[in-house]
This record gives sequence, C-alpha cells and structure tokens, in this order.
Amino acid sequence: MTKVNGWAALEANGKIAPFVFQRRQNGDDDVSIKILYCGMCHTDLHHLRNDWGISIYPLVPGHEITGVVTEIGSNVKEFKIGDKVGVGCLAASCLNCEFCDNSEENYCEEVQFTYGGIFWDGSVTYGGYSEMLVAHKRYVVHIPDNLPLDAAAPLLCAGITVYSPMKQHDMLHPGKKLGVVGLGGLGHVAVKIAKAFGLHVTVISTSPSKEKEAREQLGADDFIISTDPKQLQAGSRTLDYIIDTVAAKHSLGPILQLLKVSGTLVLVGAPDKPVDLPSFPLIFGKRKVVGSLIGGMKETQEMMNVCSEHSITCDIEVVKPEYINEAIERLSKNDVKYRFVIDIAGKSEI
Amino acid sequence: MTKVNGWAALEANGKIAPFVFQRRQNGDDDVSIKILYCGMCHTDLHHLRNDWGISIYPLVPGHEITGVVTEIGSNVKEFKIGDKVGVGCLAASCLNCEFCDNSEENYCEEVQFTYGGIFWDGSVTYGGYSEMLVAHKRYVVHIPDNLPLDAAAPLLCAGITVYSPMKQHDMLHPGKKLGVVGLGGLGHVAVKIAKAFGLHVTVISTSPSKEKEAREQLGADDFIISTDPKQLQAGSRTLDYIIDTVAAKHSLGPILQLLKVSGTLVLVGAPDKPVDLPSFPLIFGKRKVVGSLIGGMKETQEMMNVCSEHSITCDIEVVKPEYINEAIERLSKNDVKYRFVIDIAGKSEI
Repeated sequence: MTKVNGWAALEANGKIAPFVFQRRQNGDDDVSIKILYCGMCHTDLHHLRNDWGISIYPLVPGHEITGVVTEIGSNVKEFKIGDKVGVGCLAASCLNCEFCDNSEENYCEEVQFTYGGIFWDGSVTYGGYSEMLVAHKRYVVHIPDNLPLDAAAPLLCAGITVYSPMKQHDMLHPGKKLGVVGLGGLGHVAVKIAKAFGLHVTVISTSPSKEKEAREQLGADDFIISTDPKQLQAGSRTLDYIIDTVAAKHSLGPILQLLKVSGTLVLVGAPDKPVDLPSFPLIFGKRKVVGSLIGGMKETQEMMNVCSEHSITCDIEVVKPEYINEAIERLSKNDVKYRFVIDIAGKSEI
Repeated sequence: MTKVNGWAALEANGKIAPFVFQRRQNGDDDVSIKILYCGMCHTDLHHLRNDWGISIYPLVPGHEITGVVTEIGSNVKEFKIGDKVGVGCLAASCLNCEFCDNSEENYCEEVQFTYGGIFWDGSVTYGGYSEMLVAHKRYVVHIPDNLPLDAAAPLLCAGITVYSPMKQHDMLHPGKKLGVVGLGGLGHVAVKIAKAFGLHVTVISTSPSKEKEAREQLGADDFIISTDPKQLQAGSRTLDYIIDTVAAKHSLGPILQLLKVSGTLVLVGAPDKPVDLPSFPLIFGKRKVVGSLIGGMKETQEMMNVCSEHSITCDIEVVKPEYINEAIERLSKNDVKYRFVIDIAGKSEI
C-alpha cells in the first residue's frame, strides 16, 4: 500500500480538508500517476453534499485528472514512465459484457467510478483531489503534447460527456444546427467542439449577460433567452439537436419546441430532482429526449485526439489546493468561467 | 350547407347534449360519409373538459369514425358511393410542406383536427358524434371488408397511434421485447399488433387485476406491476421498447429502468401535466424517450390493411347515443374494456 496525501470530505457538510489515505500497490496492469491537475466538476458538489444519497465518506472527489506516469505494471505496454496521461470518471468495469467488449465501459452494469466506487479488490475508490493515483491501464488515456495539462483536465469528464452524444447521434456535420443549454463547464466545451466541426451553434440560457461571451469568446452564432416566449416562438422548429447540460431541475418544454420534427435533445446533466417533460412538445414533433453518460474509453481517447487536432481546451481558473472550499462555494453559485482546476502540485506550470 | 344532427358539449362541463349544426356542401375533393360508428377516445374527455385550454364550444367530439360514402366530389377517384370508409384525427394540413409531401400530415405545422380545428374555409371542425361528415379525400381511408365497422372504428386513432411508432422505430420483428404501459384503448391494440408480429409482450400496469386478461385474452407473455420494486428490479434492462399509453401524470423513472441500454420508450398519451423524467435511468443506459402523435394518412391506410390481414380489431362496448354521458363518466374511471363505440345510427348491425 502507498500512503497518499489528498483532500477529502469527511461527512456530508460539503467541506474539504487535508486527508491522508492508502492506495493499492501498482499491480501488473496498473499505471501509477503523479497527479498535477484535477478539474472540479459539478458532480463533485453533488457527491460532497450526498445529493444523490450514494456518497461514501471519507470522500476524495475528482475525476478530471491529468498527470505524469511514475510507474507501470509488467503487463503495461501502452504507457511508459514520464507519459502525460489523464484519468476520467471510470475506475473499473466487468470487462466481460457486450458494453465492455465494445469499449462502452460506461454502460457496463458493474461500472465503478473514480471516486466513491468499489474497486475489484473491495477497496473504496478515491479521486483526483490527491497527489497520486493508481489506475488500471484500461481507464487511462494519453494527453497529446499540444494540450496543456491544466486546461485539458476537464476534457476527461466535461469534454467526453458532450463529445460522446455528439458522435453517437451523428451531430458533427457542418451546417447542422445545435442548441447548447447552459453555458458552464460542459456547455462551453460543447460550443467549442461544435464550432470546430462547422456546426451552427445557438446558446440557450436564462442569463442575458452570457450572450456577449457566448458570441465573442466562444464563437456561438446565436443566443436565445429560454425565459423569453417571443424568442422561443421565433426559434420554434429550427434546431436539429440540443445538448442540455443543466444540472438543476428544470422543464424541457420551452426548449423542446426549438427542435425540428424528429429532433434530438440529449440530457447530460444529472439534476437530483426529475426534470419536467410536458407531452405536447414531445409528441407534436415526435421529438426525442435521450440520456448520455460520459463516454467509453476508446471514445475518450478519440475525443482527446480530436481536441488536440483542433486545439480545443477548457477555459479554466487554476486554484491552489487551499482554495478548494472557496472554489466549491463559488461553483455552487456558477461563479466560474468555466471550470476550476486544482493545481495539485501547487505550482502554476509543470 | 347541410344540416346535421349530432351531440355536442356546449360548455366545459363535460356534458353532451343533442345539437344540430351545419356542414359544408360536399366539394370537388370531398367525400360525404354517413357515420355509423364513432369510438370514444380519452382525448374526447380532455376536450370536453377543456383540460388543455384549447377547446372551442359548441364542441362535437369524435375522431374514430367509420361509415359509408354517400357522395363524392368530381375530383374523387379513390372512393365511390357505398364504400366503407374511416376518418381519424386529421381534417386538414397545408399540403405543401415536407411533412405533407411525405404523408406525415400529422406533423405539418398547420395540421387541423377533426374536431375543434379550423378548416381551410375558416369553419370550426365538428367530429364524429354526429350523423354525417364531409371530409377531404386525403384524410379518408378504406376499411377492408373483413373488419366490422364498429370494432374497427377505434383503429382510426388508438390503432394508428400505437402502430406508427412501432413502424417508425422498427419494432415489428419476432422476438423483440416490447413493454406496453397502460392497458386501455391504445394499450390493448398495441398488445394485439405486437403479438401478431411475434414480439414478446410485457404488459406494465398499476392494477394486478389486469394480469389475467392481459395474458389470457390478449396473449401478453409477461406482466409487471409498476409499483412493485422487486418486479421492476427483476425486469431491469430486459426490454427493447416500451409504448407508454398512460394519459395521466406519472413518472417515467420506474419503467425506464426496464429498458435495455439504448432502449426506446415512446410516449403516446398526452397527460395535461408534465410527466416526471428522472435523469439517472435516462443517462445510465443512454435510453430514449420519444414522442409520437397519431400517424400520417398513408400509414393509417397501411395500419388498416395490416389489421385486416391479421384480423385485428378493438375490444369494444357498443353504446347508443343516449348513453354518451354515462359512457363519459365510466371512461373517466377507465371502466371500459377497452373502448366505447357509439352506434350513431342507433342500430347494433348495419
């Protein structure tokens, strides 16, 4: 076992404190990683507060992890010491079902996550708010050289979560019209990826103040205030797809009507209360509401390579570990553009 | 104009009374029909009570209409006097959009319904609770000879509403596993069509009392009580498709988990309050919730022919016009197996 310094919530009060814990020895199929950066995902908040009733304490959050390989097991040919790598949400899966066979480990019934999960050896998994991680090689990806490790970290969750449905629903064609609901960690990456592929992107938000940044900084083509009936009416039946990243309870009604007939809305946020689905905008227009959960490992590497090719990274605010609690507070108010990334080693540059 | 005897609600009190009104003269493209039978759809209830806030009074309900052609316009080659025909939910559409071009008139933005709609000439449409109808030929279908006009009437709405999504989502293959939620007018036809095509059908209901009839009378293969966590757990990830016919507010959570990964739930009921859509069963399993609204006219004729081929009709209780109010009362309590059909001409046989 290896002693590791990290940061954990000891109970469901949402507060983080320094925490020392044990990780398993690096096994034959494992990769040990010196963690340099870890993004702060909205899911971390849900887990810290036990919003979903599934948290296990002490809880070391973090599933947007980048760092450098420090040790490899005897079966590991895919990585070598010194490689820049990333670990996202997945820590284990059964390796034996149709989904694992198809590298859709994220849909395996026995999937275990990077924190708050139960690994094969029975241990609870601890996440990336820590100095070191031991990961099975299957759940590790390469970070291409041109991507900075801090701004690439959130791609491991936010990036793949929006890329996977874009790919699976065949959205990535020039001229297709995509709506992105919610301009946060996920939403801003969705806009960047979509623009890189030549889509026409409409940002849909409750905040008029976001229009300027959406258009000027992210290159969005259009902007709709989702509480303005006139704008919604004018946008009726105009979009091929919508990616809804909102993590709070909301109604899908106003945004569904923006979809063309047979259009698809992908829900990627995980509100702790059910969203409202009015039947009329769904049935008048045979629209689809589909779920999507992160992505598989091959797809995650593919996303990383696509981001490398198009120089896509996240807009981040790098914080020191001692700032985590303040960052959590600000994150809960959506006061960040667009992702906090913890500089685990306490240095701004590696 | 032609004077027609019918039955109407004069205000939103849900009560029906005899009502005499005018219909347009039979035009060049029109078919006049002596109405013999009209099914009583749950939608009639919603309209009678103005549940959706869109009712126009006086309101003559009824969109599951069968009868015999009495007059045809000069441009009508498709029908002749004496033909057995049916009219469903559609009265008009723009005839000029991609959906009309594709005989998906039901998704035309200007679609008008058989009652409570505004026809091309500006008149309000009156439905099938009446002795005679003038319909544009495009919205009339042939009723094959082997289908009795009373038990075929509900196919014009209930039948096409479940057949259309089965066809569009490619469900009709032997061995595919379909769940049918709600065993009413729509649900019982869905079971019959699915069994005719060799699907494995699970009826999902809140009423244990329906198991016997589902299995013995309709041929369902399995039955799940949707309020029993054990049965839901045992059925997790087993179904390819679900057709949800429930017209009251409910949560999709318990039934979504019955779908396999990537499985599809089609919502065909139109609850007046939004249904609850919890994100977890949607995203863990990238499941789809899709809407579907009746069906197009070509598809309606195809459905009628398929029902003819497989001798599929609805299980009905035939009532006289003077029984309509009592039937409405019973329908609101789901006290009918499975559809009331009004014997408009007041005779049991034609």
